[in-house]
Amino acid sequence: MTSLLRRSTRFRAMLAGTETRFVMEAHNGLSARLAERAGFEALWASGLSIASALGVRDSNEASWTEVLQVVEFMADASAAPIMVDGDTGFGNFNNARRLVRKLCERGIAAVCLEDKLFPKTNSFVGECQPLADAGEFAGKIKACKDAQSDQDFSVVARVEALISGHGMSEALRRAELYRLAGADAILIHSKRREADEILTFAREWADRSPIVIVPTTYYDTPVSLYRDAKIRLVVWANHAMRAAAAAMERIYADIYARESVTGVEGEISSVKHIFEIMDYAELAEAENLYLPSNAVETASVVPLSRRAEPRARRTASA
Amino acid sequence: MTSLLRRSTRFRAMLAGTETRFVMEAHNGLSARLAERAGFEALWASGLSIASALGVRDSNEASWTEVLQVVEFMADASAAPIMVDGDTGFGNFNNARRLVRKLCERGIAAVCLEDKLFPKTNSFVGECQPLADAGEFAGKIKACKDAQSDQDFSVVARVEALISGHGMSEALRRAELYRLAGADAILIHSKRREADEILTFAREWADRSPIVIVPTTYYDTPVSLYRDAKIRLVVWANHAMRAAAAAMERIYADIYARESVTGVEGEISSVKHIFEIMDYAELAEAENLYLPSNAVETASVVPLSRRAEPRARRTASA
Amino acid sequence: MTSLLRRSTRFRAMLAGTETRFVMEAHNGLSARLAERAGFEALWASGLSIASALGVRDSNEASWTEVLQVVEFMADASAAPIMVDGDTGFGNFNNARRLVRKLCERGIAAVCLEDKLFPKTNSFVGECQPLADAGEFAGKIKACKDAQSDQDFSVVARVEALISGHGMSEALRRAELYRLAGADAILIHSKRREADEILTFAREWADRSPIVIVPTTYYDTPVSLYRDAKIRLVVWANHAMRAAAAAMERIYADIYARESVTGVEGEISSVKHIFEIMDYAELAEAENLYLPSNAVETASVVPLSRRAEPRARRTASA
Amino acid sequence: MTSLLRRSTRFRAMLAGTETRFVMEAHNGLSARLAERAGFEALWASGLSIASALGVRDSNEASWTEVLQVVEFMADASAAPIMVDGDTGFGNFNNARRLVRKLCERGIAAVCLEDKLFPKTNSFVGECQPLADAGEFAGKIKACKDAQSDQDFSVVARVEALISGHGMSEALRRAELYRLAGADAILIHSKRREADEILTFAREWADRSPIVIVPTTYYDTPVSLYRDAKIRLVVWANHAMRAAAAAMERIYADIYARESVTGVEGEISSVKHIFEIMDYAELAEAENLYLPSNAVETASVVPLSRRAEPRARRTASA
Repeated sequence: MTSLLRRSTRFRAMLAGTETRFVMEAHNGLSARLAERAGFEALWASGLSIASALGVRDSNEASWTEVLQVVEFMADASAAPIMVDGDTGFGNFNNARRLVRKLCERGIAAVCLEDKLFPKTNSFVGECQPLADAGEFAGKIKACKDAQSDQDFSVVARVEALISGHGMSEALRRAELYRLAGADAILIHSKRREADEILTFAREWADRSPIVIVPTTYYDTPVSLYRDAKIRLVVWANHAMRAAAAAMERIYADIYARESVTGVEGEISSVKHIFEIMDYAELAEAENLYLPSNAVETASVVPLSRRAEPRARRTASA
Repeated sequence: MTSLLRRSTRFRAMLAGTETRFVMEAHNGLSARLAERAGFEALWASGLSIASALGVRDSNEASWTEVLQVVEFMADASAAPIMVDGDTGFGNFNNARRLVRKLCERGIAAVCLEDKLFPKTNSFVGECQPLADAGEFAGKIKACKDAQSDQDFSVVARVEALISGHGMSEALRRAELYRLAGADAILIHSKRREADEILTFAREWADRSPIVIVPTTYYDTPVSLYRDAKIRLVVWANHAMRAAAAAMERIYADIYARESVTGVEGEISSVKHIFEIMDYAELAEAENLYLPSNAVETASVVPLSRRAEPRARRTASA
Repeated sequence: MTSLLRRSTRFRAMLAGTETRFVMEAHNGLSARLAERAGFEALWASGLSIASALGVRDSNEASWTEVLQVVEFMADASAAPIMVDGDTGFGNFNNARRLVRKLCERGIAAVCLEDKLFPKTNSFVGECQPLADAGEFAGKIKACKDAQSDQDFSVVARVEALISGHGMSEALRRAELYRLAGADAILIHSKRREADEILTFAREWADRSPIVIVPTTYYDTPVSLYRDAKIRLVVWANHAMRAAAAAMERIYADIYARESVTGVEGEISSVKHIFEIMDYAELAEAENLYLPSNAVETASVVPLSRRAEPRARRTASA
Repeated sequence: MTSLLRRSTRFRAMLAGTETRFVMEAHNGLSARLAERAGFEALWASGLSIASALGVRDSNEASWTEVLQVVEFMADASAAPIMVDGDTGFGNFNNARRLVRKLCERGIAAVCLEDKLFPKTNSFVGECQPLADAGEFAGKIKACKDAQSDQDFSVVARVEALISGHGMSEALRRAELYRLAGADAILIHSKRREADEILTFAREWADRSPIVIVPTTYYDTPVSLYRDAKIRLVVWANHAMRAAAAAMERIYADIYARESVTGVEGEISSVKHIFEIMDYAELAEAENLYLPSNAVETASVVPLSRRAEPRARRTASA
C-alpha cells in the first residue's frame, strides 16, 4: 500500500513514472486537508498563495521560517506528498540547504527552487526580471542535494529563462546545468497565453529528466497535449487561494449589504462540516481513551476544597 | 478623521456608542484585508476560524504565540480594529496578561476571554462544558486590564453560562462579577436556534455595560431585534472561513474530476486582482523611490569581475 | 559505531544499561554544542534554564512552540541525545501528544513530563504545589507513548509527590501508575538538602524501571551512592545557565565600572574560538564547493549594466 | 524622570548629547536583564552574539523573524533602549523597512544596518568582503526612515568600507551619502588592532552626525581618546556572549571530569538569585492580587465531584 510509504518516496515514484500527474495548490492546513480529501495525490505549497493568505506580497516579505511554519501545518493536516515553493532558496546555497534540512524533518517531499535573485519577485510581475548566475544556481542545487537527510527528497529546479525573456536555448542550457548538478526534475515556467513554449522545450529536452509545468496563463491547453509531451507533473498553482479570495469577497459584500448572514448560510460549509473535516471525532475518542472517567482518584491527593481534576471530561453529562 | 485614531480608540468608541455595529470574522491577512475593503468597521479574529485555517482543532492545539502570529499578520494587512478571540487566555491570569501585552504591542484593539478551562473546547462541541471558577476568571479580567499598555484597549468577558447549561441567573451573576472586575463589555453566548436567551439576558442586564453577541446558531434573527435590545456589537463569527472552505472544496472537486482548471477560472479571483488586493503597486512605486536607477555607482567600489554575480565569493582576494 | 544510531536509540540504550550516566543541562544552541564538546553523552533541555535564558519565568510564560524552537536549535547544534523538560505537557493529553510528535520530528530523544498542573510553577518555588490527578496524568503518559512517531523515543514520568509533601507511599503509588501507563523511566524529584528521600525511593522501587534524579539541592551527595542505588541517569539540571548568568553579571559589572573591556579579555572566549566552536570552517569549505569561482557565466545572461547591482530594478526594460 | 520616556527617545537623546556613552551587548532576555541591572544605559543586540547563542553562524542562518523573536524577549526583559544589529536588513529596502516596522512595534530604540550583501558574513571573517552598492544602501536607509512608526526610532548606518579594504575616502563618501539619506548616526567599523583608522575618520567627519564605534579588535584603546574624538557611542559588542561561552566551557569540563557539581557551586549563580533576577516575587504578589483565596465560589457552579478551581494558589499551605 502506497500510503505506508514515506511521502518523499511516493513523490519520487510520481516523477519516475510515465504518466502525467496533477499537483494541486494548497496554502494552509485547511486547504491541504481539503485537497487531499478531494483525491489529489500531491500538493503544491505555493509561494504566491501562502504569501497572499498571510496578507503579504510574494516578494519574500514573509521570512523563510514563517513559510516553514505554514508548510509544517500543511504537512500535519494532510498525508499527501507536498512540494514546497522554495522561491530562490531565501538567499545563497547555505540558506537553501538549511531550508532543505528543515523541510526533510517536517516530512516534506520536495522543494522547488527558481533561478532568480533574493528577494524574489513573483514571476508574473514586470518584465525581464534578472536571473541568478547559472553556475551559482547549479551550486545551490548541488548543496541542497548534499544536505537532504531524506534520501528520497526531491529538488526541482525551476528555469525562469523563458518567462524572463532569455530565450529557449538559454532555458535548455540552464536546465542541463541544473540536471547535471543533481536536480531531480526541471520546472519550466512560461507566462504565455499558449503552451507552445513549454511544448517546444519538452520536445528539445527529450525526457532527459522529468518535466514539471505550471499552466497558470495557458490554463486552457488540453491535458492530452501534456501527456503527449511526456510532461510528468502539472501544477495547478494557485487556484484554491483564488477561489477562497473570491468566495470571501462575495460573502463579505453580501453580509455587509444585508447586515445579515442569513443569505450566505446556504453557500458556506456548516460548522458541523468543519468539525468533520478537522476530525473532531478523533479528539472525542481520544478523550474516552486518555481521560479518567471520574475524579475519585484526586480526593486522596489534594483536599477537595483546593481542587478536583485539572481537566474534566467534556462530553460527560452534568 | 477617525482613521487617524488608534484602532483601540475606534473600537472603544463603537462600544461607547448607542448604535448596533457589526464585527466581521477574519482569520488571516487575506481575509482581514478583504473584510476591511468590504466596509466592515471591525474584525473578529475567530479562534475556530484561525484554528481551522491552520489545520488544527479549536482546542488550543495551536499555541498562543502561533495565534499571536496570525493576528499580527491580520493587523498588518488591515487598518480596521481587531477583537481577538483569546479563548480562556491560554492558562491562568499570568498567561492572559502576557497575551494582552503582546496584543497591545501589535496594535490589536480588544481581546475577548471566555470563562472556561484551558485547554478549551469549541462551544459548539458536546454539552455542559465545565466553567472556570467565577472569582478566578474575574481575577484574570482584572489582571488583563492592569496589564494593558494601550489605555484604550478593551477586554471583553465572554459568559459561557447559558451555553453550558447553568442558567440565566448564573449568567447574570457572572456578567456582573466580570463587569466589576473591569470588563469593558460582556459577550453573552448562546447556541439556541432562537435569540430568546440573548434577548432575555439583554433585558435583565439593562445596559449596565455594552453587550456583544455571536449569532451563529440563531443567525436568522432580524437585526432590528438586536437594535431594540441595545446590543452593541453583533459578531458574524466564522462565515468567511466557512465560505473559503466551501469554495475550495468545490473547485478541488471540479479540478480533480476534469483534470483541468478551465472550468473554474470564471469563479475565482484573477492573479491580477490578487495583486491589486495586496497592493503590489505600492511595491513598484517604492522601488522607484528607493532603488537606484543605475549601477554606475557600483563600479567605483568593487571590481566588475567580482560584483557581477549576485553573491560574490567572500574569501577571494581583491 | 554509536554515533550512527539515532539519538533516541542511544538514549534508550542509556536507560537500558546498568551504569549510572550523567545528563548535562543546556538551554540554547551554544550550550548544547559546548556540552557535547565537553564529552557529555546526553543533554537536558531544562525548563528553568530555557525560561531564564529567554528572560521569562519558569511558569509557562514562554509558549510551548517557543520552547520547541529552542530545543530545535539545540538539536541542530549538537549530535547528542536531548531529553526535553516538557513541564506538564503544556495542557492536557492532547497538548502533550502534539508536543511529542513535534519533538520526534526534530530528532529529540526523550521528553520528561511532570504530574503538576498547567501553568506550572518551578518546583523550588513555594510549598505544597497541587498535583495533577494521577489517573489523568497516567492517561497523558499513555497518549504520548501512543503518539510518538519514533519508536525509540522515551517518555519519562516525573513524580512530584515528594517535593510537594505528599509522602513516599503516594510517590511510589504514582510511579507505579505511570510505569503501567507506559513511562520509560521515572524521574523522582526532591528538594531536600540530603539524598535520603531519593535513596529510599530507589530502594523501594527496586529497579522496576530506570530511575532518573536531579541533584540540585542535594548536589554534594557522593555519586557512588547513586551507583549503589542503581540510579540510571543523574541530571545536572541548570548549572550551565547559572554559570553563564554569574559570568555575565561579573563582566558587566567590571566593564561598567572601568568603562573598558581590557580587563575581561583574558577570561572570555576569543572571537576566533567562537568561530571554531560554531564551525565557520565548514562554511568556508562549502563556499569553495558550491560557489562558482568566477562570474564569466553571468555576462552571457544579463547585460552587465543591469547585473552590476546586487538587486537590479525589476521593472526596467532589458 | 527619563525612565518615563520612550526608549527610542532616550536613545535619541544619547545620540544628541555631547558625552561619550557605552552600549553593552546582550543576546537574550537574561543578558539584557543583567546588563541593565549592571547600570548600562543602552544595549546592543549583537548579530554575532545572537547567532552564536542560538547555535548558528553569523551568516543569516537564523531568519529575520527568529532574530526578531530574540530581540522581543530582550525588550520584554529590560527597560533599557536596545539598538538591534540588523545586518544588511535581511534583503533589499523592502525587507529592511518591514524589519523597522516590526522593531518599532516591539519597543526597540534603534537599528543598525551595514552596507554589505545578503546573506551577510561576519566582518571578522575573510578579507575584502563585497560591499553593497552605495546608492542602493542609501535608498535602504531612506526606506527605513520613511517606514518607522515611532518618530524617535533611530537608523544607524554602518560603514564597512574600512574593514573591507576600500579606504578612508570611500568610507567618508559613503558615510556622507548615508547621512544625506537620513541615517541618524554612522557606525564606522574597523578590525585593526589600533584605533587609528577610527580616529582619523572621526577627525575628517568633524561631527557631521553622531559616530558609533565597536572596539572589538582595538579594545585596549583608552576611552579618553574616544571622548576627545567626540565619539558618541562605544559599543562593547560581544563580550557577554563570550563570557558565557567561556564560563560554560569551564564548568562543563569540570563537571564532566569530576562527575559532580560540588566544585562549581561556588562560582555559579544560586537558583534563588536567578529567581531574584527574574523577579519571581512579582508573580507571587500577582497571585495574591488576582487569584481568589478560596474555592467556595466554585461549588455553586460545578458539582464538586467534577472540579474545584482550575488553578489553585500555589503558595497556600496544605
